[in-house]
Amino acid sequence: MRRFLIDTDTASDDAVAVLMALRAPDVKVEAITVVAGNVPLDQAVQNALYTVELCGQHTPVYAGLEKPILHELITAREVHGQDGMGDIGLDLSGRQAASGHAVDVLIDTICGSPGEITLVTLGPLTNVAVALLREPKLAEAVKQCVVMGGAYVLPGNITPLAEFNFYADPEAVQIVFESGMPLLLVGWEESMSAGFVDPDDSAKLLAIGTKYSEFTINIQGGVAAYLEEMVGMQGFDLPDPLAMAVALEPSIAEIVKRRVDVVVGDGIARGQTIVDTWGVTGQPANVEIAQNIPRSEFLRVLSQLLR
Amino acid sequence: MRRFLIDTDTASDDAVAVLMALRAPDVKVEAITVVAGNVPLDQAVQNALYTVELCGQHTPVYAGLEKPILHELITAREVHGQDGMGDIGLDLSGRQAASGHAVDVLIDTICGSPGEITLVTLGPLTNVAVALLREPKLAEAVKQCVVMGGAYVLPGNITPLAEFNFYADPEAVQIVFESGMPLLLVGWEESMSAGFVDPDDSAKLLAIGTKYSEFTINIQGGVAAYLEEMVGMQGFDLPDPLAMAVALEPSIAEIVKRRVDVVVGDGIARGQTIVDTWGVTGQPANVEIAQNIPRSEFLRVLSQLLR
Amino acid sequence: MRRFLIDTDTASDDAVAVLMALRAPDVKVEAITVVAGNVPLDQAVQNALYTVELCGQHTPVYAGLEKPILHELITAREVHGQDGMGDIGLDLSGRQAASGHAVDVLIDTICGSPGEITLVTLGPLTNVAVALLREPKLAEAVKQCVVMGGAYVLPGNITPLAEFNFYADPEAVQIVFESGMPLLLVGWEESMSAGFVDPDDSAKLLAIGTKYSEFTINIQGGVAAYLEEMVGMQGFDLPDPLAMAVALEPSIAEIVKRRVDVVVGDGIARGQTIVDTWGVTGQPANVEIAQNIPRSEFLRVLSQLLR
Amino acid sequence: MRRFLIDTDTASDDAVAVLMALRAPDVKVEAITVVAGNVPLDQAVQNALYTVELCGQHTPVYAGLEKPILHELITAREVHGQDGMGDIGLDLSGRQAASGHAVDVLIDTICGSPGEITLVTLGPLTNVAVALLREPKLAEAVKQCVVMGGAYVLPGNITPLAEFNFYADPEAVQIVFESGMPLLLVGWEESMSAGFVDPDDSAKLLAIGTKYSEFTINIQGGVAAYLEEMVGMQGFDLPDPLAMAVALEPSIAEIVKRRVDVVVGDGIARGQTIVDTWGVTGQPANVEIAQNIPRSEFLRVLSQLLR
Repeated sequence: MRRFLIDTDTASDDAVAVLMALRAPDVKVEAITVVAGNVPLDQAVQNALYTVELCGQHTPVYAGLEKPILHELITAREVHGQDGMGDIGLDLSGRQAASGHAVDVLIDTICGSPGEITLVTLGPLTNVAVALLREPKLAEAVKQCVVMGGAYVLPGNITPLAEFNFYADPEAVQIVFESGMPLLLVGWEESMSAGFVDPDDSAKLLAIGTKYSEFTINIQGGVAAYLEEMVGMQGFDLPDPLAMAVALEPSIAEIVKRRVDVVVGDGIARGQTIVDTWGVTGQPANVEIAQNIPRSEFLRVLSQLLR
Repeated sequence: MRRFLIDTDTASDDAVAVLMALRAPDVKVEAITVVAGNVPLDQAVQNALYTVELCGQHTPVYAGLEKPILHELITAREVHGQDGMGDIGLDLSGRQAASGHAVDVLIDTICGSPGEITLVTLGPLTNVAVALLREPKLAEAVKQCVVMGGAYVLPGNITPLAEFNFYADPEAVQIVFESGMPLLLVGWEESMSAGFVDPDDSAKLLAIGTKYSEFTINIQGGVAAYLEEMVGMQGFDLPDPLAMAVALEPSIAEIVKRRVDVVVGDGIARGQTIVDTWGVTGQPANVEIAQNIPRSEFLRVLSQLLR
Repeated sequence: MRRFLIDTDTASDDAVAVLMALRAPDVKVEAITVVAGNVPLDQAVQNALYTVELCGQHTPVYAGLEKPILHELITAREVHGQDGMGDIGLDLSGRQAASGHAVDVLIDTICGSPGEITLVTLGPLTNVAVALLREPKLAEAVKQCVVMGGAYVLPGNITPLAEFNFYADPEAVQIVFESGMPLLLVGWEESMSAGFVDPDDSAKLLAIGTKYSEFTINIQGGVAAYLEEMVGMQGFDLPDPLAMAVALEPSIAEIVKRRVDVVVGDGIARGQTIVDTWGVTGQPANVEIAQNIPRSEFLRVLSQLLR
Repeated sequence: MRRFLIDTDTASDDAVAVLMALRAPDVKVEAITVVAGNVPLDQAVQNALYTVELCGQHTPVYAGLEKPILHELITAREVHGQDGMGDIGLDLSGRQAASGHAVDVLIDTICGSPGEITLVTLGPLTNVAVALLREPKLAEAVKQCVVMGGAYVLPGNITPLAEFNFYADPEAVQIVFESGMPLLLVGWEESMSAGFVDPDDSAKLLAIGTKYSEFTINIQGGVAAYLEEMVGMQGFDLPDPLAMAVALEPSIAEIVKRRVDVVVGDGIARGQTIVDTWGVTGQPANVEIAQNIPRSEFLRVLSQLLR
């Protein structure tokens, strides 16, 4: 049984990724830690709790940081809806988080089982970074950290240069990158190819006919509407589920090792991921990047877990 | 009995400040938390432990962070000596820190007695910032935080713009400034006037003839040599003891409230304190600054505590 | 006969400085070049032409750049009035600038008489910087360049860190500083001490009873109102006339040589002057700074030229 | 007859681009202005003069700026050879530039024939930017400015983010971008596809058997060696000839209009081109970008002009 810990700013695509892990037969999700990002912290906690309940499980959900390390909180409600789950009327309130702080849970769970826990991050890296500041040994205790974040070759989704998670808290990204933690990054542009669900795919996924498949499709309405308005595309991308698919089946991706940095601060390039593809900086590679994932493979992994 | 908690990167002037608090008859030092700064963390812990032992006390000393939040550690051994205590042959090894992490101690001690603890910081603000990230309520639980740091009107001591503590970890300063914590700053330039000890003062302090007065003067040789070489001044400045004197007797200082910011990042102005003396930014004041401290008052407070 | 060239963003204090040079018996003003700054270019040209006419002279006035090198134009009409001359009803329109561009005039005049021309700059350094880009030999051809600009020890007048001229076009300042040109800086804070005119001084200057003294005092109403509202001071500062006084009689100032840099770009420290007073950067001095000017000396020089 | 003006930091690929324009039957090259870049200014002037002589023409060559606006000069001699022309023993000295400054020639030629001159820039934009500072009307007088520069979607060639010409003088790029000049950009990544000459292509081009084809291939040895060592590719890219091909036959490229900015200053992202492909900034498009150029079309245009 593989052991996962998921850190998430739970909105529509996070929820699907969480569901995938909870339903993976050979994975135990030890805990879900929540961070502010797509939606404010309280909403993200509720969304995670709803998803756990939908899956009929009791995985503990812990609240973490309410804002990034140096920057003010930005959310993506214009994409994911006011409730972060597409505003389709789900009852997203009143559930109770576990007592304990996400940062402590990250440290205690991972350092308590050195080399055993895979950490999957779906939101800004604030919780993980603060855990590393408080306990640097976390970096060597984690088995691997699979990160949804960054835009490596295409334009970003929040600025021409930056993807939302990295833009939201670039200082946290730098702390994580410099920690020595074994990292596998799944960038946003992969979700626009491998992780993209067009109307035909949607129909097929819905046709699976489970509450899981319905949930998965129905909460993406906000993203779909946003993409149609902004770039005229039909369908929606699923960045977090794609990262989770890679965490569950790493063999679906081609993995390259690169020197990667992030631009911190407040300038025009805030949150940009800098990948030294050609080795011109002379600095050693520090992260792995998943690329060239076949869309069919992603859809296969996703479909299996929705049945 | 007033209750203090001291956060320190213990080197020669920190040691005197710690000694002052430990010997103040109406002050109980609850704990000493240590951060990397003037010297690496391990050395700073030993220096704090030595000072506590010299005073015949058992105040617990806790280790904290080994490096700043985003920047690499810089030290000031060229000023304070390799051992941070003037390299005069003190036995600064082998003592045992209390178990527990400085960040947890800051949170537990201060939040455990809301409104009662005065926090005095003598080094980079890394420990305090990480404690605030993990527990934002720390800001309202602390009675007051007296900070030695910043250069407000004069050139700095590590760059033309910046004082060492703020330069070492400017991101920590920003986190503390934006936390809402009640802050009283004692800047480095005050220590070059009010906190300056010239050869006559040294002789008088030594003439007190206690082990405390000898310790106070003898460990400043590195600072004195540095100042003579760099700027041709005879004597040495005592920034941390001056801040401690203000914490012990706030009435010796004129206190003004100002909007103050710090320059983060890696640029030429890294660590600079920006004081909006004239109110041109239109932003509300966020910190208090101690200024116009009479040198005689500082020497009086210091002398009393060395007897 | 000494030969001057004045570059100015002519507003109320520039006008007095120009008048001083035009009336100095041993000085010939070869040309006045105008740059956008306190007011837009066209207005500044008219203000310079008016001042020349008031002095009964025919010094040619040339228009230069309409905006800074990289930044958008900012003006100081809230200080100097809409017309830059205190809005007292002067007829500031319809006069004709000389044909030719300020940048070409700077190059041709100064390089045409190597070692003979003193350049006095009263506004943003845009014209001078562009002239240096086009003709780097200008740096060695000029006898000396006296610059009104920068805030070295006190808060600035436009941000807590920066003085208007340096803030307006910091990239131009850097080009000038790195050109090798012999520079003598007169900072804004000097004008708040040595260059300050209080109500008594005003009365005495007015009592001189010439059109020059009336002009000098009457156009400062905007500055006086601004200072009273902002900082509660009675009177007004005359930064440009103080710089001109130093250009005319350098012996009234103590002159020190320092390493000075300026912060370029768009950050919080934009336009800040960095003076390495203590030599901590290890870089060679590149400019001279005029300081400790007695106010009485400034008033003496000014008064003489208003008679 | 179309009228061109070429601004170039003449090294191996610039020389081919210049040759193409000089040999285009329907193009008159009015002047060649030279800027420091791939090689220092004097060498670039000699290389341009050699190329003009090789073509049996008398196009005047004018020297311009010796260094970028704010940054120090960087060269690319490690790529193009010490002489910038592959160090194959060409006699690259002793020829005489025309008298006059590149900046003045740019202004006078283009503003003298409004709407008629196509400007093609092959190096850092320093000359053009200084000309725009001195004469902003240049922007509307030029028919079109075709720029070789920037890296829009792939890694850059000098840092992971930046292409050489834009990195060398990013402030000049910003001045040109903000001038309102009609711009058509040909990015470096296009030269790694459309503008790449592999060993087969080289053989075919050499087989044309003219002095022009020999010159074109023989001076690229440095670039070929560099690419083989750095990225293991056989062959060489011809960025400047590709830009010239687009200037000569715009129909070979697909042209899109985009908002494009450049990162100025000294940070990690210096010189990066920011293309707002998805319109997320909300700012209006300011430049045209040439993309999707078929390699066959480039080779056709080039081959024709080498016969």
